[in-house]
Amino acid sequence: MQALPGFRDFLPDACAARNYIFARWREVARRYCFMEWDGPLLEPTDLYKKKSGAEIIDQLFNFTDKGEREVAMRPELTPTFARVIAAHEREFKKPLKWFSIGQFFRYEKQQRGRLREHFQLNCDIVGEAALAADIELLALCIDLLRAFGFTEKDFVVRISDREFWTDFLREKDVPPDRWDDVLQVIDKFGRESREKTIEKLGELADPVLKVLSEGGKSEKLDRLVDGLRGRGLGEFVTIDVRIVRGLAYYTGIVFEVFDRAGSLRAVAGGGRYDNLIQQLSDGAVSMPALGFAMGDVVLGELVNETPHARDRMQQAIATERKIDIYIVIAKEERRADALAQIQQLRDLSYRVDYPLTPMKVARQFQAAEDAGASLALLYGDEWPKLKIKNLATREERLIAHEELLAHLQAQSSVSS
Amino acid sequence: MQALPGFRDFLPDACAARNYIFARWREVARRYCFMEWDGPLLEPTDLYKKKSGAEIIDQLFNFTDKGEREVAMRPELTPTFARVIAAHEREFKKPLKWFSIGQFFRYEKQQRGRLREHFQLNCDIVGEAALAADIELLALCIDLLRAFGFTEKDFVVRISDREFWTDFLREKDVPPDRWDDVLQVIDKFGRESREKTIEKLGELADPVLKVLSEGGKSEKLDRLVDGLRGRGLGEFVTIDVRIVRGLAYYTGIVFEVFDRAGSLRAVAGGGRYDNLIQQLSDGAVSMPALGFAMGDVVLGELVNETPHARDRMQQAIATERKIDIYIVIAKEERRADALAQIQQLRDLSYRVDYPLTPMKVARQFQAAEDAGASLALLYGDEWPKLKIKNLATREERLIAHEELLAHLQAQSSVSS
Repeated sequence: MQALPGFRDFLPDACAARNYIFARWREVARRYCFMEWDGPLLEPTDLYKKKSGAEIIDQLFNFTDKGEREVAMRPELTPTFARVIAAHEREFKKPLKWFSIGQFFRYEKQQRGRLREHFQLNCDIVGEAALAADIELLALCIDLLRAFGFTEKDFVVRISDREFWTDFLREKDVPPDRWDDVLQVIDKFGRESREKTIEKLGELADPVLKVLSEGGKSEKLDRLVDGLRGRGLGEFVTIDVRIVRGLAYYTGIVFEVFDRAGSLRAVAGGGRYDNLIQQLSDGAVSMPALGFAMGDVVLGELVNETPHARDRMQQAIATERKIDIYIVIAKEERRADALAQIQQLRDLSYRVDYPLTPMKVARQFQAAEDAGASLALLYGDEWPKLKIKNLATREERLIAHEELLAHLQAQSSVSS
Repeated sequence: MQALPGFRDFLPDACAARNYIFARWREVARRYCFMEWDGPLLEPTDLYKKKSGAEIIDQLFNFTDKGEREVAMRPELTPTFARVIAAHEREFKKPLKWFSIGQFFRYEKQQRGRLREHFQLNCDIVGEAALAADIELLALCIDLLRAFGFTEKDFVVRISDREFWTDFLREKDVPPDRWDDVLQVIDKFGRESREKTIEKLGELADPVLKVLSEGGKSEKLDRLVDGLRGRGLGEFVTIDVRIVRGLAYYTGIVFEVFDRAGSLRAVAGGGRYDNLIQQLSDGAVSMPALGFAMGDVVLGELVNETPHARDRMQQAIATERKIDIYIVIAKEERRADALAQIQQLRDLSYRVDYPLTPMKVARQFQAAEDAGASLALLYGDEWPKLKIKNLATREERLIAHEELLAHLQAQSSVSS
């Protein structure tokens, strides 16, 4: 028996890599004073239909539960976020800055960087319409990736503005009910044939293609980039009006993060969605909002393909995995004494391992090395003294067993 | 719109309590040198039928996916564990000690301490038949709860042995194919009427009820308790042969953890299941194994009902939530200077917040207090100097802005 296609088993190495990603995400989000929250993994299917239309159903793990409810394993967090914010926003000061780390599910064709489940970091700001919030969110997104050791040579944030395009379409007298269609064509630009793009755009083909090839400019986008430059993050971003994001609900600044080599799918993406909370709460609550999501699968690939990021991860995992003390039981008569002291050491939060059953001393020392232990303590003929061996320096010394805890505590206060 | 019945939204306070539980679990499991792993949230339904029989289906969130696969949201981790171990055991030294923290789902009637989803810690040891492994696992289970501040006055581990009962039944010449039925009756003892118990047990009623009322003894259980006593953990356990655990796959020592007041469901439970890996791998791999699970819902209730544990949690959450520095922008002309320095401070891993838009100075100091900031830095008329205010002591001083980072680093190396 195997895991289902598109689902991962996280054996210890894979789980450590996943936890490394989560720890970086959490640490940087907290630097920005975002608060962590989470929603349910299963939600009413209607929550997703309402936001994305009925066609989303094709991509869901959805079913009828034993209480005849139409339910779906969550494909994304934003609808849950809007639901929770609409219900609870009065309990929190604005601007509200929240993040969440969780698993999401989509039934789709498997391909590189896309499984049927993945973990995602979501960061959102609610209640602030000013561009300062967009800049703060982008700075967070950049710093999240810098925490993995990535530099401006490794990734780029492509920034655009939906309003740039809606202003353009308004100026060309395109009726608002056609705007979404045009934005969809722009979203697919480069992935669809030029002929198809021209055909779909009709009389708009010439002016749109001109902007797409020459690039667009706007005072708002310039202010945004200036804000990031003022923080020393200018090298990480580029204005690229070809980015519109497929989802209909974005209303302002939108962005996507790509590896510089351009060989992977987007590492992250998001933008401003000032109307979504109102729409999903049936008009009960209206608040400006913006956010982005970053997935673990593409990010993990980028870490693995980038030597300095991979080294940093492997070093962090090795450090996290190290144990403090391996107990070598050289005489079985000393086992009970050793076990009593193992309990004391663990009570002091040391990571302590030992052989559950009798084992040759040489094999015990090998196990200590394999576990990356800092110290080995030998319980044997020297009792009531112990032999302490520093496994890095190979230094050994004898110490009375009653003095062990005081000795270790003195050591650790020196080294920290 | 609301969350589905039996599913929780984790607003920031609830999420912090959940993370507090996860952090304690992870820290103690690592002290015992257990490695973290995880499996998929969705598995083939057959995996659960194989272990628990077709009746498990009634309690599952199961469905047919878009590829016509019968799938289920995982109700427990052990079947996945057995699948993964059977596939990968050669890659790991024995005894293998693994733990996992994840979410599980059961479609069942809602009641206190039981929702339709919960989080669970699973800890398992594979490849060691000796009683030393049972003792180690029990010590881990006890220390996990001690890490929340619980003492022997707050909880008790009731320990029993399936072999005690199978020895008893063998001695009474009960055929092995009846053993499971008898164990099921013992499992329900106290919850079913005495009449029903007597009726079901038939000619075994007298001897079984005698053992249940007088208690049972065995040399193995005595050695187990002695082992825990040798670690100073004797006060946390009691022998109680009424514990047999409902699940058919246990083969040896079994245990359940309860609050001393006896007002809650079991906090944790587990035991030895030496045949399960063989059974679930269709005989491909045979290895002794043992483990337990601890859920977040009952544990969270016990923390909340136990004042010293609740205080400890609230203190830990408050500490975790504190920010380091709040930036007060007293003059908007200084905003750009402040933002450049905010970026530098965050690069040094400080948690830094500031007002995204202009705000009265008094309100900014209030925001700093609300966030539990240690320091406020004021960017105003004093520029190119800053005012640093220690929000605990109310001390203020002026410092040149170029000296800020060196000043903070000197401070933190003194205080740590």
